[in-house]
Amino acid sequence: MATEVIGRKCLIIAAGDGSRLRQKGDSKPLIPILGIPLIERVIRSAMEAGVDEFYVVIGWQSDLVRDFLERLAKRLAIQITPLVNEDWEKENGLSVLKARDVLQEPFLLLMADHLFDPELVRTLTTHSLPDGEVALVVDSDIHNPLIDMDDVTRVRVKNGKICDIGKGMTDFNGLDTGIFLCSSAIFEALEQNREKDGDTTLSGAIRVLTEDGRANAIASNSFWIDIDDPAAFKRAEKALLDRLRDKPTDGPVSRYLNRPLSVMFSRHLVKLNITPNQISLFSFLFSLVAAGLFMMGGYISLLIGGVLAQFASIVDGCDGEVARLKYQSSDFGGWFDAVLDRYADAFLLFGLTWHVLAIEANGWVLFTGFMAIIGSFMLSYTADKYDNLMRERIKSGLRMGRDVRVFLIFLGAATNMVFPVLVVIAVVMNVETMRRVRVACIG
Amino acid sequence: MATEVIGRKCLIIAAGDGSRLRQKGDSKPLIPILGIPLIERVIRSAMEAGVDEFYVVIGWQSDLVRDFLERLAKRLAIQITPLVNEDWEKENGLSVLKARDVLQEPFLLLMADHLFDPELVRTLTTHSLPDGEVALVVDSDIHNPLIDMDDVTRVRVKNGKICDIGKGMTDFNGLDTGIFLCSSAIFEALEQNREKDGDTTLSGAIRVLTEDGRANAIASNSFWIDIDDPAAFKRAEKALLDRLRDKPTDGPVSRYLNRPLSVMFSRHLVKLNITPNQISLFSFLFSLVAAGLFMMGGYISLLIGGVLAQFASIVDGCDGEVARLKYQSSDFGGWFDAVLDRYADAFLLFGLTWHVLAIEANGWVLFTGFMAIIGSFMLSYTADKYDNLMRERIKSGLRMGRDVRVFLIFLGAATNMVFPVLVVIAVVMNVETMRRVRVACIG
Repeated sequence: MATEVIGRKCLIIAAGDGSRLRQKGDSKPLIPILGIPLIERVIRSAMEAGVDEFYVVIGWQSDLVRDFLERLAKRLAIQITPLVNEDWEKENGLSVLKARDVLQEPFLLLMADHLFDPELVRTLTTHSLPDGEVALVVDSDIHNPLIDMDDVTRVRVKNGKICDIGKGMTDFNGLDTGIFLCSSAIFEALEQNREKDGDTTLSGAIRVLTEDGRANAIASNSFWIDIDDPAAFKRAEKALLDRLRDKPTDGPVSRYLNRPLSVMFSRHLVKLNITPNQISLFSFLFSLVAAGLFMMGGYISLLIGGVLAQFASIVDGCDGEVARLKYQSSDFGGWFDAVLDRYADAFLLFGLTWHVLAIEANGWVLFTGFMAIIGSFMLSYTADKYDNLMRERIKSGLRMGRDVRVFLIFLGAATNMVFPVLVVIAVVMNVETMRRVRVACIG
Repeated sequence: MATEVIGRKCLIIAAGDGSRLRQKGDSKPLIPILGIPLIERVIRSAMEAGVDEFYVVIGWQSDLVRDFLERLAKRLAIQITPLVNEDWEKENGLSVLKARDVLQEPFLLLMADHLFDPELVRTLTTHSLPDGEVALVVDSDIHNPLIDMDDVTRVRVKNGKICDIGKGMTDFNGLDTGIFLCSSAIFEALEQNREKDGDTTLSGAIRVLTEDGRANAIASNSFWIDIDDPAAFKRAEKALLDRLRDKPTDGPVSRYLNRPLSVMFSRHLVKLNITPNQISLFSFLFSLVAAGLFMMGGYISLLIGGVLAQFASIVDGCDGEVARLKYQSSDFGGWFDAVLDRYADAFLLFGLTWHVLAIEANGWVLFTGFMAIIGSFMLSYTADKYDNLMRERIKSGLRMGRDVRVFLIFLGAATNMVFPVLVVIAVVMNVETMRRVRVACIG
């Protein structure tokens, strides 16, 4: 029983009409969720896991879907071959059979209406599949709140093998994620079942393979969801947004104030034709205006400036979120955002310093403003210079990022206590920089 | 004729008395050159090429050398085995023979009085040596000005094989660098020669191996030097210092003004017990004092401050030079130096701004000073954030580093034209930052 290295081919079933989601759009695979059609999300998640050659079985509204796939293939520079299943109203196994002539080596099998974490597929692409067997990613959380328990296909697993699979089962310990790694044995099992009792479901074919232990289960707890009806669609949308919120580098203000709000904004921003870099630029312009308001003098403009600065800090989270939701992340984007943030920080602090100097021209105010600006810079600089080594060494310290800095500025403006806030920023930022030097030195 | 992967063992011949260098010290291997004993330089250069197990043949003053090697082995956490050659006054082949019982697999053979670029040894450690053969690194520059032509061993090479080797030859096309990769064939050749006609020179043994094409030549143009007499010692010292001067990242002021002077300082600093990080700190303190002088007001303190700032910028080159000369380079050192430089830049520019404000308190002066500080910061930040990718993209631009910045500050102070210089720095640094953003975006 030889094992094989897995190819990068992927079959996606997108033939059904998705009648329960008709209100969202004519063709289910093309329904956009947070700005991106379902089928594109599936393809791009698989791409993130290393796949670059796709076969998509289409049926209902096949011309519409085919057109979209052609454009997508061109846009992403990948190969997408459509396969038409005229019997799309019948069971899904018939769609799988359409690929029998084009897919011999082990291939991934995905559903167009199942969204998932690329990690799930990556596990499969590195899995070595014995000849004549299949593997299914099984969700071991049988109380997964994202999944509709009445509708999901249930699985019973023992020692890594699937013992039984089906919708009504009561004795089960896993959920069928619809993410498979198949050998051509799947085609033979489908044929065998069809000839025997006319069963053309994919589950039926898997059941055949369970009989001689050829259906493997790969346990996982990563994110996946089956989008069958408006309720599931809503859950999926919420889940995709929630996933943006656990960014490990977020500071406290970001985590509890900025991120919840920016995710709310991003949910709408993804539907507009606006790029993450444009969002970075908008956030920067808001900060510039805020700095200008600080310099105007008077409490009212100070207050408005403070609110605007905090608002800019919130919007500043949206660029990364939209980039992740729309697969538009780029090295330049991260770098550009950081460069603009440094300018924004400096201008905000300069505006505050100017504000205080206008009230009381004083060397100490000037020096404090200067130290606040330099300290803020140094905090970013010490973290970014020599990415790997030093960041590793200094990461243990308190999270004292931009979120805290801007929030302090907002507080200072709102309470009309600008000079004390400048002092706090100057002290905290420079002391933390010195702490980092000490830690980096000790190593 | 099988080839073998080269081990990491290294034999160093350090038995001679080096009578021609007696004025420099009792034991030749222990004579310090730019603060580091010759034998330590050889060992550390070999370590940089990946070697970590050493056998050193000692003779003259063997107790002194053995003591030093013991301490060195502990300090560098490597293995150094001394082998004593009582016949150190006779030919050098006898020293090589001392290793016959401990070295079987291919090993590197170096001379304690030959300094070299680690690259030369690295070539050998990756060279696969056929059984029963040896390889010698041959300098193909037969007019190498570092080498004493009357004393060097000459080599004639044809098709990668050594045809002849000896001191008096007139028909030669290469120089013997004294850097060998040997198999145990070298011991057999030495024995054979000794029995035949009493010749115990290493060259004699190599000549035996040339007869049946077992002596390979590996051509090189990298730095090496044989230190036999005071003249060669002087040339070596100068060569080591000259090598510090071609740092590819140096800007124009650094290359033509700072570096020649800092190398002159470093030459003396290596002899003191001062670390590179301490030098960084001194340079920073000079900048702080310069900034303080700027703030005092008056042309005299401005002038002294400007000179001191430029002096600090020159001293700032010494930390890296001393680190390279004394094998004390570290990731922390580079990071620490960069962090201090950012603070120094900011304080110098703040000092200048203060100076101008004291003469004429004016919003434009404040804004210009602020823009000069932020622009200088951004220039360093854009270069350092995302080391690899973005640095690759933006490197094409003009070299506008710290050397130019501080030189402008010096010029402004010396000519009492501080405000114009602040304007120039503010404009140039921010325009260059924007150019980088544009270039990084285009990719």
